Amino acid sequence: MNRTEVLQLRNEAEHHLVNELLPFWTTRMKDVPNGGYLTHFDKDGNDSGEDEKSLIAQTRCLYTMSSAHRAGYGNGECEPHARHGADFLINKMWDRMHGGFFWMMDRKGNVKIDEKIIYGQSFAIYALSEYTLATGDPRGIEYAEKVFDLIQKYCVDSMYGGYWEMFHRDWTIKGPGGKGGDRKTLDVHMHLMEAFTALYECSGREVHRRKLLEDIDLLMYRIIHPVYKTGIPQFFKNWEVAPQIKFDVIWGWDRFSAEGQKGNATDNTCFGHNAEFAWLLIHACDILKIDPADNAGLFRTIFDHTVDNGIDYEFGGVYVEGPHSGGVYDREKEFWQQAEVLTGLLDAVLLFGDEKYWNAYKNVHRFVFDKMINRGIGEWFPLMSRRGDPIWTHMGHSWKINYHTVRSMIQSIRRLDMIAANLNH
Amino acid sequence: MNRTEVLQLRNEAEHHLVNELLPFWTTRMKDVPNGGYLTHFDKDGNDSGEDEKSLIAQTRCLYTMSSAHRAGYGNGECEPHARHGADFLINKMWDRMHGGFFWMMDRKGNVKIDEKIIYGQSFAIYALSEYTLATGDPRGIEYAEKVFDLIQKYCVDSMYGGYWEMFHRDWTIKGPGGKGGDRKTLDVHMHLMEAFTALYECSGREVHRRKLLEDIDLLMYRIIHPVYKTGIPQFFKNWEVAPQIKFDVIWGWDRFSAEGQKGNATDNTCFGHNAEFAWLLIHACDILKIDPADNAGLFRTIFDHTVDNGIDYEFGGVYVEGPHSGGVYDREKEFWQQAEVLTGLLDAVLLFGDEKYWNAYKNVHRFVFDKMINRGIGEWFPLMSRRGDPIWTHMGHSWKINYHTVRSMIQSIRRLDMIAANLNH
Repeated sequence: MNRTEVLQLRNEAEHHLVNELLPFWTTRMKDVPNGGYLTHFDKDGNDSGEDEKSLIAQTRCLYTMSSAHRAGYGNGECEPHARHGADFLINKMWDRMHGGFFWMMDRKGNVKIDEKIIYGQSFAIYALSEYTLATGDPRGIEYAEKVFDLIQKYCVDSMYGGYWEMFHRDWTIKGPGGKGGDRKTLDVHMHLMEAFTALYECSGREVHRRKLLEDIDLLMYRIIHPVYKTGIPQFFKNWEVAPQIKFDVIWGWDRFSAEGQKGNATDNTCFGHNAEFAWLLIHACDILKIDPADNAGLFRTIFDHTVDNGIDYEFGGVYVEGPHSGGVYDREKEFWQQAEVLTGLLDAVLLFGDEKYWNAYKNVHRFVFDKMINRGIGEWFPLMSRRGDPIWTHMGHSWKINYHTVRSMIQSIRRLDMIAANLNH
Repeated sequence: MNRTEVLQLRNEAEHHLVNELLPFWTTRMKDVPNGGYLTHFDKDGNDSGEDEKSLIAQTRCLYTMSSAHRAGYGNGECEPHARHGADFLINKMWDRMHGGFFWMMDRKGNVKIDEKIIYGQSFAIYALSEYTLATGDPRGIEYAEKVFDLIQKYCVDSMYGGYWEMFHRDWTIKGPGGKGGDRKTLDVHMHLMEAFTALYECSGREVHRRKLLEDIDLLMYRIIHPVYKTGIPQFFKNWEVAPQIKFDVIWGWDRFSAEGQKGNATDNTCFGHNAEFAWLLIHACDILKIDPADNAGLFRTIFDHTVDNGIDYEFGGVYVEGPHSGGVYDREKEFWQQAEVLTGLLDAVLLFGDEKYWNAYKNVHRFVFDKMINRGIGEWFPLMSRRGDPIWTHMGHSWKINYHTVRSMIQSIRRLDMIAANLNH
C-alpha cells in the first residue's frame, strides 16, 4: 500500500459521503407535517409511500445525522435534522405507560406495533447517546439511560446470563419459537455492545462500563465460535446453539424458506456480522481504554476468516454467509455487509499492517464504488447478484436506511487518514 | 405421631409466641424520640446501649411486626409498631441521592455506614412487601419495588448470572476478597428468593415472578451441592466454589480465625441454612402455584442430610455445620438454626409423613423450649454449648433479633395445625 493510493480511496469515500450520500437523505428525509423521518424511497429516490415509521429506521436516521454532525460533516445542516428526529422519537414513540419505545408507528405517529423489541431499543440507546454527544441536548442521554434501566430490569436472564429479546408492550416476555421469547442472538448482543459503548462514552457511568464489559464477555465466551471465532446467530437460553429460525417480528430480509427454515441452520455464520463485531469490539476497547492488541489473536482469526472465505476475488465484494469452518453458502452481495467489512478491514490494516487485508479492502471498496452505489441517486442498492446486478433496488425502507452506508464512509475516511499518516513516517 | 401430642407442642409454641416472644419486643422496641426500633438488649432484656440501627435489624423487626399482625397475633398492637418502623426506614434510611437503603445508622438516624449491601436490601424488600400485605399501606410495596429495580440494574451479573452483593453508596461495586465484591453467596441468593417471594405475593407482577424463578434456578443448579443438595456458602463470579472467607461488612457472628479464615473453608455446609432453604423454596412454590412434590427427591435429600447429620440425638438441638458428604464440624447450638430447622422439619412431615422427621422435630422443639428460651425474659439465647449452656447471652443485637424466633413460631403453629388436621382424617 502507498500513501497516494490510500488518499485516493479516502477522497473517493469523502466525495461520495459529502456529495451523494448525505444530500440523498438531507433533501428527502424530513417529514415536516408529521415529524420524524421519511424512510421509504424507490430506486429513483422517490417516496414509495409505505405508511410506517419503524423504531429501527427512525433511530438509525437519528444516529446518522448525529454522527455526521459530530464528525464535522454537513456544514451544520445535520444538527437540526437530528433534533427533528429526536423530537419525534421522544414525543411520539416513547410509551408513557410502560416505558420503552414502540416498535412501529404509522407516518402520522400512531402506534402500529406496540411490542418492545430489544434490537430496536438497543438502537435507541445508540442513537440517543450519539445525539447528545453531537449536540449536547440532554434529552438524548436521559432517554438512553431510561431504556438502559428498563433493559436491565426486564431483559437480563439472571440465571444463564445474556438478554431476553422479545417482549410485549408491558415487558412481559413473548412466547417461544417464532415469537422469539426463548432465543438469544448474536445480533442483539452485538448491537447492545455498540449501544453500551456509545452510552458509556456519553455518560462515563460505572454501571454502563460494567454492563458493556459483561456484554463483551458474553460475545467472546458464549456467542462466537470457540474455535473459529465466527458469530453463531441463535441460541437457547442456556447458550446451546439453536437452529436459526425466522422470527415473527423481523428487522431485515434474511432469506428463509416459506416455513421459516434456514438452510444449514446450525452451521452458519455471516461475514458482515463477523467483521462488524470485530471493529465494534475494537471501538469498544478504544472507549474503555483497553488495548485491542491484547486480543490480537482473536481479531486476526476473525479477519482471516472474512478475507479467506468471505471475499469474492473474482467479481468483487463480500458474500453473505458460509460455514464456520470455512467456505461459502450464499454468494449474493448485501449492501450492509459491504459497508461493515470496509470498516473492519481498515481496522485490520491498522492493527496488523498486512497487505492481505489492504488488498481485500480495495476489492470491496471497488465493488461498492463501481457497482453498488446507485449513481446519480446517491444511495446503495440493497442486494445484488454475485456479479453485481441489482436484485432489490429500493433506496430506503424500514430495514434499509443510511446507518450502514454513512457510517462506513465516516469510519473509513477516519481510518484511511490514520493509515496515510502512518505511511508518512 | 398422634393428634394430642401435635396439639400439645402447638399450644406450647403459641403460648411462647403470644405470652413471651411478642411481648418481649412490643414492650421494648419502640424508639419514641428517634423513630425506628431499639434492637440491643442484654440477657435481662435491658437496653445495652449500642448506638446503632442496622438495616437488617430494622427491616427484620418490621417484618416481624407485619407478619405477626397478618397472622392474627398481637390484638392489633403490632400494626402501629410496624408503621412506626416503616416510617423510620423510609424517611431516615433511604438514600435520596443514589437510591437504596443505607447499611448502618446511629440511633438518632445519622448515617454510620453508607454502603449498599444486598443482604440488607433483600430484607428491605421482604419486610416492606410483608408490611403492605399486612397493613395495606402502599408505601411498603412502592419502596420494595424501588429496591428491586435498583438490584436488577446494578447487581445482576449479566455474564455468569447471579447477583453481585457488595456496593459502595453510589452502587459502584466493591473490591475483591474481604470487601466481597468478587463473591457470590448462598446467603444472599437464598434471601433474595425469600424477598422476591413476598414481593411477588404482594405485587403479582410478572417480572417479580420471573426473577424469583430465575433465582430458584440459581439456587438449584449453581449454589446447592450437585450430589448432596447441601448449600455451598461462597463462589467466585463464574460459580467456581470459593474458600469461605469473612467479609469486612458482616451480618452475623460466624466463627472465623483471627486471619478471617474458616476451617474446612471449601467443604462446609450449614444445617440451618439447608433446612431454611428447603422450606423457603417450598413456600416459594406455594406462592408460585407450583407443586413442591415435583421436587420431592430434592427436598427428601436435604431433609435427610439435616436429620442424619445435623441433629444432636444425645443432647438435643441442631449442630452448626459439617461436611457436604455427612458428619459434623461444629457441635454448638445457634439460635437461628434451631428456629429454621423447626419450620423445615414440619414441612418434611407435611410432604412425606415420615416419623423420622417428626422425631427430629420433637428433639429440636424440646431443646428450644427446655434450654434455649431465656425463661422469664422471653427471647432465645443466641449461642449455646452442645449441652445447652449459654455461651452468648444477649437478647437483641444488630445481628440477633426477632425474625427467626417469631417467624419459626408463627410458621410452626400453622404447620402443626395442618398436621393435626391431617391426623383427623
